[in-house]
Amino acid sequence: MERTEVATLGEFGLIEHLTAHNETRHAGTVLSVGDDAAVIDHFGKQTVVTTDLLVEGVHFDLMYTPLKHLGYKSVVVNLSDVYAMNATPTQITVSLAFSNRFSVEALSEFYEGVYAACEKYNVDLVGGDTSSSGKGFIVSVTAIGEVAPNGFVTRKGAQKGDLLCVSGWLGAAYLGLTLLEREKKIYLENPKIQPDLEGQDYIVGRLLKPEAQKELIEFLAEAGIVPTSMIDVSDGLSSELLHLCKQSQCGAVLYEEKIPIHDAARQFAYQLELDPTACALSGGEDYELLFTLRQSDYDKIVLNENISVIGYITDAEEGAVIMTKGGNRHKLVAQGWQHA
Amino acid sequence: MERTEVATLGEFGLIEHLTAHNETRHAGTVLSVGDDAAVIDHFGKQTVVTTDLLVEGVHFDLMYTPLKHLGYKSVVVNLSDVYAMNATPTQITVSLAFSNRFSVEALSEFYEGVYAACEKYNVDLVGGDTSSSGKGFIVSVTAIGEVAPNGFVTRKGAQKGDLLCVSGWLGAAYLGLTLLEREKKIYLENPKIQPDLEGQDYIVGRLLKPEAQKELIEFLAEAGIVPTSMIDVSDGLSSELLHLCKQSQCGAVLYEEKIPIHDAARQFAYQLELDPTACALSGGEDYELLFTLRQSDYDKIVLNENISVIGYITDAEEGAVIMTKGGNRHKLVAQGWQHA
Repeated sequence: MERTEVATLGEFGLIEHLTAHNETRHAGTVLSVGDDAAVIDHFGKQTVVTTDLLVEGVHFDLMYTPLKHLGYKSVVVNLSDVYAMNATPTQITVSLAFSNRFSVEALSEFYEGVYAACEKYNVDLVGGDTSSSGKGFIVSVTAIGEVAPNGFVTRKGAQKGDLLCVSGWLGAAYLGLTLLEREKKIYLENPKIQPDLEGQDYIVGRLLKPEAQKELIEFLAEAGIVPTSMIDVSDGLSSELLHLCKQSQCGAVLYEEKIPIHDAARQFAYQLELDPTACALSGGEDYELLFTLRQSDYDKIVLNENISVIGYITDAEEGAVIMTKGGNRHKLVAQGWQHA
Repeated sequence: MERTEVATLGEFGLIEHLTAHNETRHAGTVLSVGDDAAVIDHFGKQTVVTTDLLVEGVHFDLMYTPLKHLGYKSVVVNLSDVYAMNATPTQITVSLAFSNRFSVEALSEFYEGVYAACEKYNVDLVGGDTSSSGKGFIVSVTAIGEVAPNGFVTRKGAQKGDLLCVSGWLGAAYLGLTLLEREKKIYLENPKIQPDLEGQDYIVGRLLKPEAQKELIEFLAEAGIVPTSMIDVSDGLSSELLHLCKQSQCGAVLYEEKIPIHDAARQFAYQLELDPTACALSGGEDYELLFTLRQSDYDKIVLNENISVIGYITDAEEGAVIMTKGGNRHKLVAQGWQHA
């Protein structure tokens, strides 16, 4: 593969190169990349803004993360926060710092992933910054979204009796990470052994190419449902539920048997002698949405296979607890649960 | 000084600690720090968004940059981009990645600077992210501003005959950097020698605690002036003027004798046997605004001592040139000028 040094283009040349085919999808994107700032028109809606920093060696390992996937994921994790406000993402900015081991081709690959996410989620890339770094690869993304005036949903509105719901499947990204870390270790000890990822597309894909919950937000809007509270699941179900309870000043009962765990994830967990429930509670990086609904909305969601009702909201004094399959009641802690 | 390890607070505890006294200044800041995203209401205005990444060892040296100053400057450089759109900054997000050599006290110092800038410039801190990093200190700030519909000013509108203007003083930040780098080198060679910064408060201050051009934007609004184009001077006058000419498809004549260089900067340049003009053209980090005005606006700015008319706009074929004090005409290049 060709290798063009970043220095041959210079900072401005690099930005021009990386944004040459950048498309604008929103009429509200009045001015995009290429000036001191972008300009956005909101036509009477409210703006939602969120930002995330991804650091090589902390959030990702380039030994098994293709740069295109990293670009895609960097966008998706931010969009996930916008959806968690019940809002629609519209624009992003992407900033990069990279050492001189990265060529123009490598950065272009990263941007391919960024643009793929922009297309899939219908957002405009409107700005950013590039910089050298002494070491490693650092990504900072800010996402902007819009929501009807006061249509946003925070972590604060859960009420006693509300249904506790989650989208999709939990725990698989953590298992994908565990698998890739295992294969990396084997490879480093003996570079002749090729990684064995056979049959594990699902869990590996959940880690390397997560998706944000666009369909869920669209479904809720169409069904006329406004969740009473919502949060995205980036640090594991336990941690997110505790945030939600703290900010809503409530407790919750979670049923272990209701936690949605994909068969492929469950099988691989058993293979590693891990508890699939623990993977869902503490694993993280699933980018599903955890939310609460009034009981009267139950009929509207019961047929949606992407939504699992996993428990309900209680008074603050009850705390956040999990009812295990064996019928035991444990207090939830940030990393899974605390045995009595 | 006390040293509290970040690990004792955890990520969420740290964020709570750093944002405990965060104030909201704008009615439009509907929801601030503490949820998946912030929510902003614009009351019919357009939004401006810009982002900058600052990397230790590339953009700053913590050996001579107090963390409080770094926090302040990280905000200011982003606000400068908002003002360069003729907009008013309203909200910021601040993300940090730091290695374990930074304590909670050190991070609090950084945030003191962030909050000082928020107060001075009347902006709300509405979000961010914190992360560990293998090495060094990395800051990513995104600034949001507002502007009356289509009241923003880009780099594209300069017309033949327009006056070329700049705010404040140029070149001093580069000289401040040169001084601090010199003293650092002396100190590293012999730690017993204390840095000698006597009488150099001005140039050191211009580097370590730059300000953004709030007053200029307010003056232009009050005077009823809309610049035809505008850009902030972060990379040196030459580089910014070339951007402006390229994007406006025009040329420019710049008069060396009109470039505003502060006496303190000029004296120190002579002391180092540097050309003060070269420092202004190539130095960078001044965070002044370079802009163009219709000639008919001249009467409105002539009494403003903060604005210097330094040249005028020509046809693209003429290129961007500087007329030296000696009466010579040189082509401007990104780093200063090219001798014929």
